Amino acid sequence: MKDKGTAVIIGAGTGLSASVALRLADAGYDIVLGARDTGKLRDIADRTGARCVPLDGSNPEAVAALYADLPGPLRVAIYNPSARIRGDIADLDPETVRKAIEVTAFGSFLTGREAARLMLQNDGETKGTILFTGASAGVKGFAGSATFAMGKFAQRGLAQSMSRELHPKGIHVAWVNIDGGISNPDREGRGDDGSNAMLDPDAIAESYQHLIEQHRSAWSSEITLRPWVETF
Amino acid sequence: MKDKGTAVIIGAGTGLSASVALRLADAGYDIVLGARDTGKLRDIADRTGARCVPLDGSNPEAVAALYADLPGPLRVAIYNPSARIRGDIADLDPETVRKAIEVTAFGSFLTGREAARLMLQNDGETKGTILFTGASAGVKGFAGSATFAMGKFAQRGLAQSMSRELHPKGIHVAWVNIDGGISNPDREGRGDDGSNAMLDPDAIAESYQHLIEQHRSAWSSEITLRPWVETF
Amino acid sequence: MKDKGTAVIIGAGTGLSASVALRLADAGYDIVLGARDTGKLRDIADRTGARCVPLDGSNPEAVAALYADLPGPLRVAIYNPSARIRGDIADLDPETVRKAIEVTAFGSFLTGREAARLMLQNDGETKGTILFTGASAGVKGFAGSATFAMGKFAQRGLAQSMSRELHPKGIHVAWVNIDGGISNPDREGRGDDGSNAMLDPDAIAESYQHLIEQHRSAWSSEITLRPWVETF
Amino acid sequence: MKDKGTAVIIGAGTGLSASVALRLADAGYDIVLGARDTGKLRDIADRTGARCVPLDGSNPEAVAALYADLPGPLRVAIYNPSARIRGDIADLDPETVRKAIEVTAFGSFLTGREAARLMLQNDGETKGTILFTGASAGVKGFAGSATFAMGKFAQRGLAQSMSRELHPKGIHVAWVNIDGGISNPDREGRGDDGSNAMLDPDAIAESYQHLIEQHRSAWSSEITLRPWVETF
Repeated sequence: MKDKGTAVIIGAGTGLSASVALRLADAGYDIVLGARDTGKLRDIADRTGARCVPLDGSNPEAVAALYADLPGPLRVAIYNPSARIRGDIADLDPETVRKAIEVTAFGSFLTGREAARLMLQNDGETKGTILFTGASAGVKGFAGSATFAMGKFAQRGLAQSMSRELHPKGIHVAWVNIDGGISNPDREGRGDDGSNAMLDPDAIAESYQHLIEQHRSAWSSEITLRPWVETF
Repeated sequence: MKDKGTAVIIGAGTGLSASVALRLADAGYDIVLGARDTGKLRDIADRTGARCVPLDGSNPEAVAALYADLPGPLRVAIYNPSARIRGDIADLDPETVRKAIEVTAFGSFLTGREAARLMLQNDGETKGTILFTGASAGVKGFAGSATFAMGKFAQRGLAQSMSRELHPKGIHVAWVNIDGGISNPDREGRGDDGSNAMLDPDAIAESYQHLIEQHRSAWSSEITLRPWVETF
Repeated sequence: MKDKGTAVIIGAGTGLSASVALRLADAGYDIVLGARDTGKLRDIADRTGARCVPLDGSNPEAVAALYADLPGPLRVAIYNPSARIRGDIADLDPETVRKAIEVTAFGSFLTGREAARLMLQNDGETKGTILFTGASAGVKGFAGSATFAMGKFAQRGLAQSMSRELHPKGIHVAWVNIDGGISNPDREGRGDDGSNAMLDPDAIAESYQHLIEQHRSAWSSEITLRPWVETF
Repeated sequence: MKDKGTAVIIGAGTGLSASVALRLADAGYDIVLGARDTGKLRDIADRTGARCVPLDGSNPEAVAALYADLPGPLRVAIYNPSARIRGDIADLDPETVRKAIEVTAFGSFLTGREAARLMLQNDGETKGTILFTGASAGVKGFAGSATFAMGKFAQRGLAQSMSRELHPKGIHVAWVNIDGGISNPDREGRGDDGSNAMLDPDAIAESYQHLIEQHRSAWSSEITLRPWVETF
């Protein structure tokens, strides 16, 4: 067991989650990765000693089971999954929309709830940090993107409510608006060409770690990370 | 059939919905009221000639059935229901939260979708108006109110997305933040004592009608209505 | 003297101010128009019986003098002037910027202050209404438009502060974001071609009157008016 | 001359500015401190080797003179001064208000303009960072605080406009909302009692340095720093 406690990352893949996992493992956290498909996590698990748990982050029982069995006290919880469905409002399929809201928002709630329950039992000035990976769709509802807007707005409302409730109890909650595409050398056409027009996952991970390490007298509850050339 | 077409109000009760129904009936609309409990709508139905449809506004089939059978072309659709669950994040029951999000947000989507499908077939400079009754919980996530925050934020994101998509197609969409309690002489302790510290439902209905009648060169997509003495 | 009291409009021209003056004159207000150049107001004055006062709305003495001499109790005050300077931040001339902020923001303050002083002496449930004509530049600071952003943001902050202070004292304060160009048949290339892609000043005036007539249990303090085809 | 270049801090005192100066001096920047009263800066100057320049940050000539004579290429510019005037809107003195807006907003513009001119000549992926120290008054206009609201809103509008213009040119601009009191052991009643209910200036400085060091693919343009127990 490492000395900083456990960091859970839900929605782990080879991009952002891998960068965060590596950085937090280096910083002294035991890493637990939860994802639908844990096959692609082998490399990250090897490099960080992470435990990999296959799960649907919007399934209450599966989420409860993951948080019930951690290698040490939970200090960091990060929720990444989201479902981006596009289409004119009149053409959207209700069941697809319902499921998408559950992945983006209800899953955020499940991780937020379990993390809060565990962290409230911790000691220390800061009992833990809960981060939600958001998007501009949580600030502005774009045309043709009602489903994603509903999910990301809901997630941001959740994060605000949790910040107001949990900050005075010593748990830091933040919603991070990732305003742009994230580069990923493993995915075709997503590698960075040197222009830094997409967010470097290591750069995001650096800001996540900064949030985790902020002194409790100066916490941020919402930040936006955006490439220098992104219009907004 | 009246000459202005049909106005559908979902979540009809003796308060806001009654005031809106009366005002729109006076203005020349056929009124269709959808509510879980249509028993309490008898008086309103008598006074407006409204058709009353018992339904759960978050049930896709029920909503589709209501909109499939209207007395005339749909010109106004208003969605009022919401589920306000309070409690510390760690104490919330997942199934209760899931259901609450469906009432507040998914139901808004269902009415928004059906209304858009119908209104797109209308003619006229303004093809129709879709109004969502919101709350401050859609702008600010309060402590102990994560469920309501998720639902109202999602509803606001939906309304923004629909505004951006549908305004250029001639359908006016607006989200109305009702920032305060609504007075209701039929409910104990909710009557107005002359201080106007709670919103008068007739006053809200007046602003709803103003939104419906706005010229398409000057549409509002989000407004807040708030009692003069309400802090904000 | 008319029975509704006096309405002062600062920054009066042949566009928005003329529409508002005509509508409020019809509604029973004595109109006082303040503008740098009162020559172009002759037609409006003839049609409304308005008094025209030449003044710089950002000059404290001139503004005080106008409000010190009104035909009846002040019930409505509207501030329209603004200075839109474009340019890269590095190229802006400090004195030009200083003056522009004074026209847009300091002038708003002067009218707000004088109007508040007078209206606090009125009786009635609603003692008066103060409206500031804003722009999207008060919500979003655009590139190459730092000067206008400073002025309109400041004006919006003023309006919010005044709303919170004066609403509980019976004075309604609202900031109106005019998000688009205003059509004007008197100005070359600004007439409406039937597409309603620019705001019709009469449509804006209708929403201004709606704000003035809102019941105090349901006041709006910020609204946006935007053409149906405007992107946002 | 140090290797990181020059960092200018305007509005330097013994609190936040001292913490930032110490941290940036450690990080390798030559420090230039501008303040009305440079007497209180002696200790900081001794510990950092900073140059101290007496000036009024809202005076165009004085600001231009400071930036015209720096020990090395400007890489960081931070603007802290603000004028907080309280009072009912009807009681505010116009000249006091005008001057206060100049200190908070016009001074921000002057530093922003001079810093942009100089940084545009730098090379490197990130040519420089400009930070404005804001307050919640720039997001919400509080009752009895119209003056401060105007200044801070204007400053935030400026920062947004500069972000949109300068980010694609390689200059990082951010507005930092300091939402709470800043502790200061040198000022009576402002020392921290261990509760961290006021912001620790060293904690703020840490976030300032994080902003300065953010990779250009993931820049923040607005952040809020708030004590864990602060209501919001």
